[in-house]
Amino acid sequence: MDRFQVEADFKQLQDNICTALETCDGKATFKQDNWTRDGGGGGRTRVLENGNIFEKGGVNFSAVHGNLSEAAAKQLGTSAGDFFATGVSIVIHPNNPMVPIIHMNVRYFEMDNGLCWYGGGIDLTPHYINADDAHFFHAALKRTCDTFDASSYDKFKPWADDYFYLPHRDETRGVGGIFFDRLKPAEYEENELHKFVLAVGNTFAPTYTAIVNKNRTLPFTEENRKWQLIRRGRYVEFNLAFDRGTRFGLETNGRTESILMSLPNQASWEYDYKPLPNSEEANTLKALKKGINWLFKDKVS
Amino acid sequence: MDRFQVEADFKQLQDNICTALETCDGKATFKQDNWTRDGGGGGRTRVLENGNIFEKGGVNFSAVHGNLSEAAAKQLGTSAGDFFATGVSIVIHPNNPMVPIIHMNVRYFEMDNGLCWYGGGIDLTPHYINADDAHFFHAALKRTCDTFDASSYDKFKPWADDYFYLPHRDETRGVGGIFFDRLKPAEYEENELHKFVLAVGNTFAPTYTAIVNKNRTLPFTEENRKWQLIRRGRYVEFNLAFDRGTRFGLETNGRTESILMSLPNQASWEYDYKPLPNSEEANTLKALKKGINWLFKDKVS
Repeated sequence: MDRFQVEADFKQLQDNICTALETCDGKATFKQDNWTRDGGGGGRTRVLENGNIFEKGGVNFSAVHGNLSEAAAKQLGTSAGDFFATGVSIVIHPNNPMVPIIHMNVRYFEMDNGLCWYGGGIDLTPHYINADDAHFFHAALKRTCDTFDASSYDKFKPWADDYFYLPHRDETRGVGGIFFDRLKPAEYEENELHKFVLAVGNTFAPTYTAIVNKNRTLPFTEENRKWQLIRRGRYVEFNLAFDRGTRFGLETNGRTESILMSLPNQASWEYDYKPLPNSEEANTLKALKKGINWLFKDKVS
Repeated sequence: MDRFQVEADFKQLQDNICTALETCDGKATFKQDNWTRDGGGGGRTRVLENGNIFEKGGVNFSAVHGNLSEAAAKQLGTSAGDFFATGVSIVIHPNNPMVPIIHMNVRYFEMDNGLCWYGGGIDLTPHYINADDAHFFHAALKRTCDTFDASSYDKFKPWADDYFYLPHRDETRGVGGIFFDRLKPAEYEENELHKFVLAVGNTFAPTYTAIVNKNRTLPFTEENRKWQLIRRGRYVEFNLAFDRGTRFGLETNGRTESILMSLPNQASWEYDYKPLPNSEEANTLKALKKGINWLFKDKVS
């Protein structure tokens, strides 16, 4: 696949997703910031704030190129040289604690030495885990994976469990999803990998907006909101301390405001906060574990 | 200095500081959690929340020992073996945006191979920089440094500028203070280094409570509070993404709640937030730079 085609397809994906999210929200619209990178390329950062449904959300596109520093090359396991990288990154924080946070990313990377890969992932972070929603979400991801390779969901699902994980809390970030990295197009039939990555991108909007629409009118209490802010604190912990994309961006002089659009408008930390036994909050904590098969609905109440 | 003496002196320091902060607050008292570490040792975590003055504050003591893993040893530039480490760590987030955040840490580390060092630091993070307060703070630190070595303030002040720095923002965390690490007692006269580190610890309470008492009754607006939460967001960014102590703790299976007591009760992130030109917020941003000599009061208005 030609790199310009990848870039064009990712740009189109950004457009489609923004339209779908604006329609879903019904009030807020994305503000666009075009930026250029000193070393080459740039991006279109789109952020929406204070919507009906979405408190803060970012849908970022970037396509950058230039010389990869020794340090960055080392981190990527390759040698210095000219690189090209493009991707779409999304994080959405809703107002209503009954609506989950979501993240999606697709990315493409190539070097002038011939190295070339795709990566991506989607994961859902409910403040309150609902087994039906988790099932619906994973079933949608499995359908997309199955169009690519019958074994890919079984590979990419545990990969997400391992990646979206907070070791210092022994908690997964949410109910997971799929994650894959450094998949080489040469190892697949022509354009197969590209098509799959786009399919992952196209799975995002219909799946997430369905979950949003199912839960958007649910009532919530101040206690629910408090718990939401604590869960968002965990999201901040993961993104700043562990997320490889965030850390790579911050360490390689990326555009800070685009990278950190993933952080919520408000978050909180309370010392040693423990939910009441058998509360909805405690049940959610219990289900923040690796290895749950969400394709079966009877795993949590 | 005997390691048990260091531990006893640090414990006493924790007691004295907690008493001083409780007296200053007048309402909240520290809640104490004793914990033990699987590999050896433990700590006394003390956290205060919802005070008159302090929204959240932690004053932690720990003394741990055991076998240092290869990975941890490598990060510390030594070889694996038995270690002992003790320290006091403080972060205080006040309610009133006109009262600064403060951090203090003193630490002692030794290995069975004879390696032995002290480290520490204090830095002040005003939400609104006030040159008089910054001057008062740095003058107090300089007086403490001068009792140790006439050149130490000039060495430890720029060290703090470099350490308490957010590269992705090109901002210092606040008005800095002093920082020092891996100072070896063998390079100083007997007990000199130990006495200095205790003197740093003893500088904390009178200096910070004086700044608190000067500003605690200042009125503030909702805008001031909003700015405070954004500045706290920066504090979270520094601690999770850059602070070596926090990262080392999270990566070596430290007690998470004790490590992350440094995070504020509430913080916020707004996409690409820029204060109005010539506002107090903009003036503070301009002064979040390395290399400002706060001993001269005329550096900022």
